[in-house]
Amino acid sequence: MRIELITIGDELLLGQIINTNVAYIGGKLGKVGLRLAAQMSLPDEEAELERFLREALERSDVVITTGGLGPTVDDATKAVFCSIFGKKLSLKGEILDDLKRRYGENLSEAVRSQAVVPEETEIIENKAGTAPGFIFTGEDGMAVALPGPPRELRPMFEEIVLPRLGRLAASGGFFLEKTLRTVAIREADVDRRMRQVIPDVEGVQYGLMARPYQVDIRLSCVTEGKERAEALISEAERRVRDEFGESIFGEADQKLEAVVGQMLRQSGLSISLAESCTGGLISSRLTDISGSSDYLRGTMVVYSNQWKQELLGVPEEVLMQHGAVSEQTARLMAENVRGKGRSDIGLAITGIAGPTGGTSEKPVGLVYIAFSDGEETFSKKFSFVGDREMVKFRSSQAALEMIRRYLLARKKGAD
Amino acid sequence: MRIELITIGDELLLGQIINTNVAYIGGKLGKVGLRLAAQMSLPDEEAELERFLREALERSDVVITTGGLGPTVDDATKAVFCSIFGKKLSLKGEILDDLKRRYGENLSEAVRSQAVVPEETEIIENKAGTAPGFIFTGEDGMAVALPGPPRELRPMFEEIVLPRLGRLAASGGFFLEKTLRTVAIREADVDRRMRQVIPDVEGVQYGLMARPYQVDIRLSCVTEGKERAEALISEAERRVRDEFGESIFGEADQKLEAVVGQMLRQSGLSISLAESCTGGLISSRLTDISGSSDYLRGTMVVYSNQWKQELLGVPEEVLMQHGAVSEQTARLMAENVRGKGRSDIGLAITGIAGPTGGTSEKPVGLVYIAFSDGEETFSKKFSFVGDREMVKFRSSQAALEMIRRYLLARKKGAD
Repeated sequence: MRIELITIGDELLLGQIINTNVAYIGGKLGKVGLRLAAQMSLPDEEAELERFLREALERSDVVITTGGLGPTVDDATKAVFCSIFGKKLSLKGEILDDLKRRYGENLSEAVRSQAVVPEETEIIENKAGTAPGFIFTGEDGMAVALPGPPRELRPMFEEIVLPRLGRLAASGGFFLEKTLRTVAIREADVDRRMRQVIPDVEGVQYGLMARPYQVDIRLSCVTEGKERAEALISEAERRVRDEFGESIFGEADQKLEAVVGQMLRQSGLSISLAESCTGGLISSRLTDISGSSDYLRGTMVVYSNQWKQELLGVPEEVLMQHGAVSEQTARLMAENVRGKGRSDIGLAITGIAGPTGGTSEKPVGLVYIAFSDGEETFSKKFSFVGDREMVKFRSSQAALEMIRRYLLARKKGAD
Repeated sequence: MRIELITIGDELLLGQIINTNVAYIGGKLGKVGLRLAAQMSLPDEEAELERFLREALERSDVVITTGGLGPTVDDATKAVFCSIFGKKLSLKGEILDDLKRRYGENLSEAVRSQAVVPEETEIIENKAGTAPGFIFTGEDGMAVALPGPPRELRPMFEEIVLPRLGRLAASGGFFLEKTLRTVAIREADVDRRMRQVIPDVEGVQYGLMARPYQVDIRLSCVTEGKERAEALISEAERRVRDEFGESIFGEADQKLEAVVGQMLRQSGLSISLAESCTGGLISSRLTDISGSSDYLRGTMVVYSNQWKQELLGVPEEVLMQHGAVSEQTARLMAENVRGKGRSDIGLAITGIAGPTGGTSEKPVGLVYIAFSDGEETFSKKFSFVGDREMVKFRSSQAALEMIRRYLLARKKGAD
């Protein structure tokens, strides 16, 4: 089954946004044994769009488009599809009613226009926005039109489009993949170790995705039949897990903050944070997880020495003698935020995010992270490379990893 | 001049990497008055590649390819170009010598194969890797082949390809664009107002990019000559600025946190934050800006009522009577963090980020933001839609906008 993807929008060609829909849709198709044969990005121009869309439909069984369904002047997709599939546009009462329920009785013309849809066409409901999607079927195959914003497109693709395509493709070679995420190991080291691990499982390939302070290992295979593919991937996964053990923190799209959040919840422990160089990033990541108020008491972003002294109680002498970026300061920050925050755990971070503020003794990227549970306090020194945002992000990864390792060790001790 | 871009590589279609080359090349072309007419991603398959490449050359004046030039088995680009442009491959001594200089006398077969290049073809030197690039010229136009890795491609594109295309285009129509960013106006409203503003400037088009709590207006035109284009865009910009006034916070890639940071620096005022529902996100965004320690004293993320009471001094009665998410709590948080943080400004935010925790009286997305400068305290109530991360982000945008508006009004008062 040949599938092509057309992403629509001037902004994609002008370099205003990076197109993440291609990798997303390509990756999701892979999970059901399918893949993209080609992808193109086109401007919001009706004539151009119609020409490429007709050609793609001739070549392929399925063409998916994203974007161009909004209510603004440069959105042309609906008209082009109607021209190709010989449909008329008309106002659909149910969609209008639903829009009124969600956005009130007095809809703007723009929002109201979203209820004008091709007749006799399958509609895909958009729960996260105003533009519905469409599935057209004709002699030349099937076309699926989805809105462009990822948060609107993703649920529509996963709930409606993907299962439909999966059923369509049920015959043919089966493609299977599985991703395991590691933290705190270098890409080169993961690669070296994977070369030893993987040759034993014939037919399975691996690919690495290096992210900040994290490397994802992607195992994949194409074989006849789902069962054989599952057996191969599961054997490869077992070997990778044997090799990397606790360095693997999750699978596929799982985020480190979600894993740490879940572990904190299970442990029943509460936590407070004191952040300096990360400026609130660790706290913001932990609070991206729903229910985090059950374990996170609060965070002090002590961005000035005055806050470190007056609000967190780090003595002036310590700051004078060792500096704000020092092991001593980090440890006191962790102990004090734990006490003031009345929580089981205190975690603190101080460092130099750059690009200015570094010295030969304390260069940009120097970071201390300290952890206190009331019985003991320990700390670790890091040297991170990268620009300001990268140093902040790597630091937040290392801090989350420190919490994860503590909770793993504690759980083992309890077992 | 019509330019198309073809990015080559299985990994692009399988979702293993996000394609950043498109946004990069599209953006760079825009700077010299050019734009991409279309872009496509293709797998490493010779037949597929040849078919699309021939079609693209027929449609366009210039086709740029990235990827597919490496030494591995699935790299097919060189052969396809030779077939299309009627060239033979042969070993080029100069390239071989250069590779030996850089990688030693004993080159692997793979690296040595990079010295096998199309005859009578312009070579683009690759200083950051082994695969050279090529410029083919024929009856159907010009084709440029570049390696895929961004760090190899970028210097080759900027030093050789971009100036060449700029000269080629000097005769044809000149493309110019300018982006203005607005905050706190809905896309549909921006669109309605732009329809009134823009017809007066003939030849100028606009496009809108809706982002969270922000809409970017992109003005563009294609005319004869740079001067005419600049005059048109500048007239359109004047009209847009007249219409939207202070709702425009910046241009092109400027971030709201960077604009607010710069204004804080100029004002000489210091700030402290008290965040609840945003969990540290506003603080993290402000500290993404280098030098933010000059004005940000610190932030309290008071994620529990206990922190709100004990560390921020919000009386229990207020929390009991009005709730943690209330105007009264927000105002006290702002006043108290200003006082405890010993700063000129205190800003506070409290709300329900969801997806749980909402009630009919206080639904998910309800957010209060309060601002205090010691003389007066004011607050504003918001209702945001979207998932948890979106509510957090929109809230942070609204908070930054509140600071911006205060500093604008203060500056006006001083003038």
